[in-house]
Amino acid sequence: MVTTDEKIPQQRTSFDLTSYLKHQKDLVDQALESSLPITKPEKIYEAMRYSLLAGGKRLRPILCLATCDLMGGTVEMAMPTACALEMIHTMSLIHDDLPAMDNDDYRRGKLTNHKVYGEDIAILAGDGLLSYAFEYVATQTRNVPPEQILEVIARLGRTVGAAGLVGGQVLDLESEGKSDITPETLTFIHTHKTGALLETSVVSGAILAGATREEVEKLSRYAQNIGLAFQIVDDILDITATQEELGKSIGKDVQAQKATYPSLWGIEESKVQAQKLVDEAIAQLAPYSEKAEPLRAIAQFIVTRTH
Amino acid sequence: MVTTDEKIPQQRTSFDLTSYLKHQKDLVDQALESSLPITKPEKIYEAMRYSLLAGGKRLRPILCLATCDLMGGTVEMAMPTACALEMIHTMSLIHDDLPAMDNDDYRRGKLTNHKVYGEDIAILAGDGLLSYAFEYVATQTRNVPPEQILEVIARLGRTVGAAGLVGGQVLDLESEGKSDITPETLTFIHTHKTGALLETSVVSGAILAGATREEVEKLSRYAQNIGLAFQIVDDILDITATQEELGKSIGKDVQAQKATYPSLWGIEESKVQAQKLVDEAIAQLAPYSEKAEPLRAIAQFIVTRTH
Repeated sequence: MVTTDEKIPQQRTSFDLTSYLKHQKDLVDQALESSLPITKPEKIYEAMRYSLLAGGKRLRPILCLATCDLMGGTVEMAMPTACALEMIHTMSLIHDDLPAMDNDDYRRGKLTNHKVYGEDIAILAGDGLLSYAFEYVATQTRNVPPEQILEVIARLGRTVGAAGLVGGQVLDLESEGKSDITPETLTFIHTHKTGALLETSVVSGAILAGATREEVEKLSRYAQNIGLAFQIVDDILDITATQEELGKSIGKDVQAQKATYPSLWGIEESKVQAQKLVDEAIAQLAPYSEKAEPLRAIAQFIVTRTH
Repeated sequence: MVTTDEKIPQQRTSFDLTSYLKHQKDLVDQALESSLPITKPEKIYEAMRYSLLAGGKRLRPILCLATCDLMGGTVEMAMPTACALEMIHTMSLIHDDLPAMDNDDYRRGKLTNHKVYGEDIAILAGDGLLSYAFEYVATQTRNVPPEQILEVIARLGRTVGAAGLVGGQVLDLESEGKSDITPETLTFIHTHKTGALLETSVVSGAILAGATREEVEKLSRYAQNIGLAFQIVDDILDITATQEELGKSIGKDVQAQKATYPSLWGIEESKVQAQKLVDEAIAQLAPYSEKAEPLRAIAQFIVTRTH
C-alpha cells in the first residue's frame, strides 16, 4: 500500500478538510445513533446515549476510518471499532467529570452526565459504555480475520486501563495543586490520558485493514505526535478560548492549579512546540501518496483549531 | 463429551468439595497474583490489587475452570478468562460500594476501596480492572481458536453492560425504598446483577473448550438456576449471618429498605425456593458422568453456605 514511485505532494493539495470532516462526522454520528438502541432499563440507555450523542468532533472515529482507508480497508471493517473508540472516549469524559474527579458541570456545551442523571447513573453509564465498546467490536466487525479483531480489542483494553487513560488520569489528579511538575511528568500524563487513545484510533484502523508491522509503526509515530500536539493546543485553548467556543467550563486548569504546557513554556512557545510535533507527524506520512491527505490535513487542523 | 452410556450417579459420591474448592481457589489466587504486576503509576495498580486480591471465594473463576474441564478443555485455556471474570466481579463491587451507590465501608472483611484510596481512585481502579479484563482475555488465552475467544469477549461485554450487571444495578437503585417491588422486578434485578456473570462464568468455560450449542444451552440453564439460588441465599444471609461470618456490612438491605426475597416470601419459603432452583440446576447435569461432580457439589454448596 506504500506507493514510493509516486511523487510526494509538497504543496497543500485541493483537499477540502472541512467537507471531509463534516461527511465523516455525519457517517459516524449515524452509526453511533443506531449502535445503542434503548431497551429496559431505559434510564441507563438514555444516560449512555445522552453523552455518546452529545456531539463532539468525532476525531477518534474519523482517524480510525481514515487510517483503515489509507491501508486499503473499508468503512464496514472499521466502523464498529470507530464507534467503540467514541464510546470509550465518552466513558472517560463522564467519569473524569464526576465530582470525585474534575467536578465539571459542562461538557460539549451541555450539562455533564451526573448533573442530569445523578452520580450513581453517571458511573454506571460509563461502565456500560466501556463494556459495550468491547462487545460491539467483538460482535459487529465484519470481513476482518478474528486474530486482527483480537489485536484491536487488546489494544483498546490497554489504552483505557492503568497503562493508558486511567494511569494518565491518576497522575493528573496527583499533580493537581503541585507547583513542581516537570515537563516529563506532564508528558507522561498526556501521552497516557490523551495520546494513547488517539494512537489506538490510528493504529486500530491500520490493523483492521491488515497493515504490516512497519506500517503500523510509522502510523503510531504519526499518532503519538498529533496526540501530544492536541493536548498542548487543548491547554492553550483552556486559557484563550471563550466558554461558548469550547462548550465546556474554561479556565478550569488555572483554577485547579493544574500543570499545563502554557504554564511551563508560555503560550507562544507552546504553539511553536505543537507545530513542530505536527510537522514531525506529517513527515511520517511521506511514503504515502495523496491518499494520506486526510491524515495530513487532520494533523494540521489540530494546531489551527479554535475549539 | 456427553456420556449417555454411563450410569448417572444418583447418590452423592465421595467427591470432596472442600478440598476441591481450596485447591481451585489456590490455583486462581496464584494466577490473579501474577496477572497484575505493579508499574507506574503505582497507586492505581495498588488500588486494583487491593480489591482483586482481597480474598473471596473465587466462585466465578472456579465455575469457569470446572465447566471447561467438564467439556474436555484445559486449565491453560480457561485461566485468563477465569481471572477476567474475577476482575469484572471486583470492579462491580468497587463501584457498587461507592458513596454515590450503596455506600458500603466494608467488603470481604476489609475496608472498601474508596475508604482506603479515595473515591476518585476507586472509580479509576474499577475502570482499570474492567478494561484489563478484556485485554487479558485477548492477549493471554492460549490454544483456543480466535473465534471462540471473540465469543467469550462478546459475552463478557454483554454481561457487564446495561444488559447485565449495570442494568441490574440501575433497577436495584431505582427500587430502593419502594415498598411495591414485584417478584418479577426482583428477579430482573438479580438475573442481571448476579445471575448474568455466574452464567457467563459457566458458559465461557464451555465455549473455550469448544462445547456444542446444545451443551452450552444446558449449562446456561444450570447457571441461571444457581445464579438465582445464590442471590436468594445472599438475601437470607444478609439477615441471618453475623458481620464476622460475612465479612461485609450486614443488615444493609433492611436499612436501605431494599426489596429482597425474604421480604417477599419470608426466610423459610426463600430457603425452599433456593433448594428447588438448585435441584433444577443439578437436573441439567444428568447427561454427564461423575466428571460433573464439581458442578453438582457447587450447586448444593450455594444453598448450604453460611457466608
